[in-house]
Amino acid sequence: MTRYDIAIIGTGPAGLEAAITAKVRNKNIILFGSNDLSHKMQVVKHPILNYLGLPSVTGVQMAEAFQKQLKELDIQITEQRVSNVYAMGDYYTLQLNNNETVEATSVILASGVVVGKQYDGEENFLGRGVSYCATCDGPLYKGKTVAVISTSKEEEEEVHYLSEVAQKVLYFPQYKEEVGLKADNIEVHHEKPVEIAGMMKANTLKSDQGEYPVDGIFVLRPTQFPGSLVPGIQIEDNAVKVDLQMHTNLPGLFAAGDIAGRPYQYIKSAGQGNIAALSAVQYVSEIAKKK
Amino acid sequence: MTRYDIAIIGTGPAGLEAAITAKVRNKNIILFGSNDLSHKMQVVKHPILNYLGLPSVTGVQMAEAFQKQLKELDIQITEQRVSNVYAMGDYYTLQLNNNETVEATSVILASGVVVGKQYDGEENFLGRGVSYCATCDGPLYKGKTVAVISTSKEEEEEVHYLSEVAQKVLYFPQYKEEVGLKADNIEVHHEKPVEIAGMMKANTLKSDQGEYPVDGIFVLRPTQFPGSLVPGIQIEDNAVKVDLQMHTNLPGLFAAGDIAGRPYQYIKSAGQGNIAALSAVQYVSEIAKKK
Repeated sequence: MTRYDIAIIGTGPAGLEAAITAKVRNKNIILFGSNDLSHKMQVVKHPILNYLGLPSVTGVQMAEAFQKQLKELDIQITEQRVSNVYAMGDYYTLQLNNNETVEATSVILASGVVVGKQYDGEENFLGRGVSYCATCDGPLYKGKTVAVISTSKEEEEEVHYLSEVAQKVLYFPQYKEEVGLKADNIEVHHEKPVEIAGMMKANTLKSDQGEYPVDGIFVLRPTQFPGSLVPGIQIEDNAVKVDLQMHTNLPGLFAAGDIAGRPYQYIKSAGQGNIAALSAVQYVSEIAKKK
Repeated sequence: MTRYDIAIIGTGPAGLEAAITAKVRNKNIILFGSNDLSHKMQVVKHPILNYLGLPSVTGVQMAEAFQKQLKELDIQITEQRVSNVYAMGDYYTLQLNNNETVEATSVILASGVVVGKQYDGEENFLGRGVSYCATCDGPLYKGKTVAVISTSKEEEEEVHYLSEVAQKVLYFPQYKEEVGLKADNIEVHHEKPVEIAGMMKANTLKSDQGEYPVDGIFVLRPTQFPGSLVPGIQIEDNAVKVDLQMHTNLPGLFAAGDIAGRPYQYIKSAGQGNIAALSAVQYVSEIAKKK
């Protein structure tokens, strides 16, 4: 298996800047995200005035400028979601949503901030009836009933897949846009989930309007809480704890952008992506020297 | 006297980003620097590849993009050098090289990194025969002999002024370019200064080739050491000590860019300028609430 020098998670300004800096420094990188870059950027309609170098651009224009730069530097985006990052000593293993794994000497977390909080019981039952990954865990629920909570319309493709596998899907969309799913076995509930309950395994989703007995519960968010993405990572004030060089508490793991805390600003994220990449470059060469 | 909300020192990427962010947030700002922006940017001839949003630009092209943005936001640059920043309680007084002063509730230091070290004796004799400011202290040396050390050709205008005031100028240029000064009373010494010596006052400049008795010594650098710019500021590893929100140890004083430490990268500086500006905006509104 190829071991990458640096795996970068996220294609907002932090991840992109980290990618271009690492690439310019001749590192072997893999960049996880979306070819649309960041959903947030695509929906910004008002002009962004304070990104130095791009006077008064829309999010779409900004994304176009970024994409042009990726192309010039021949940087590809791997459109897979990373479901877990495991520290293995002198490298990291990244588990992807398609059940493949990737190895990298260092990792930069730039997957953005997660809006909202975890549901009561969510963390407790994770891996015991609660899943974040339709592709990974969907097959476990063949012929069964699952509840799916999703915070973003982007996830509907995943919900659709679950409806093909499970017998019944109770769908709890937590976004404003209209639900675009049309399958007979999807029951849409416009309710607010409040708790995931059960005994050994989760078996009930409680909403503000009722209780639903289910075999499993999927919680789909465009971005995972960093604590569930990387076991052992230190969190402070809802953000990954970093120092000025973007080190986290785990050697070889760096964070940049919204995931590393406020302010939530494009240029701040890009600046931190640059620092994280240079710290990762240095870490990779230290590891290489040890061998 | 107008009291500005935020005074920003420096027109590299950190200062410029701080200025545009503060301006977008409707703060009353004053930006000190050069209409050429940053000397460093002007001399970069190779393409800069890793400034996200500006694929493969030269320093001059980058400066042009920045200047366009300043114009769009109607931000002016005040071409005065700030020689001292004094904490006055709930505001700061900035002393300028033309002997005027400016008041601001908060200050962002973004004046870049100073290459090299202070000379032996320099700090000790500062204000006692050693000066950083030709305009301020030149008149004290009418009819006398001064030594002038300069680290950059940019300073020659100041040296020329000193030659008009003093009887004799011993000039020690510390740069590679040819000296462009033509005055009968300027004696150019291509030597390396090693120590400033004296008793109550500095009276001797020692170089690697000789000793020169003088009445005063001017040390001219494009950027001042932060410790001599702001009395009481905390320095660590040759940089202003900051936290992730770009606070220094002095309330209302922020630092961003090279002056706040490595890596020395354009986009990192811009990112920190953004953070510093937002921290300053918050500080200014807290001060306003107290009144």
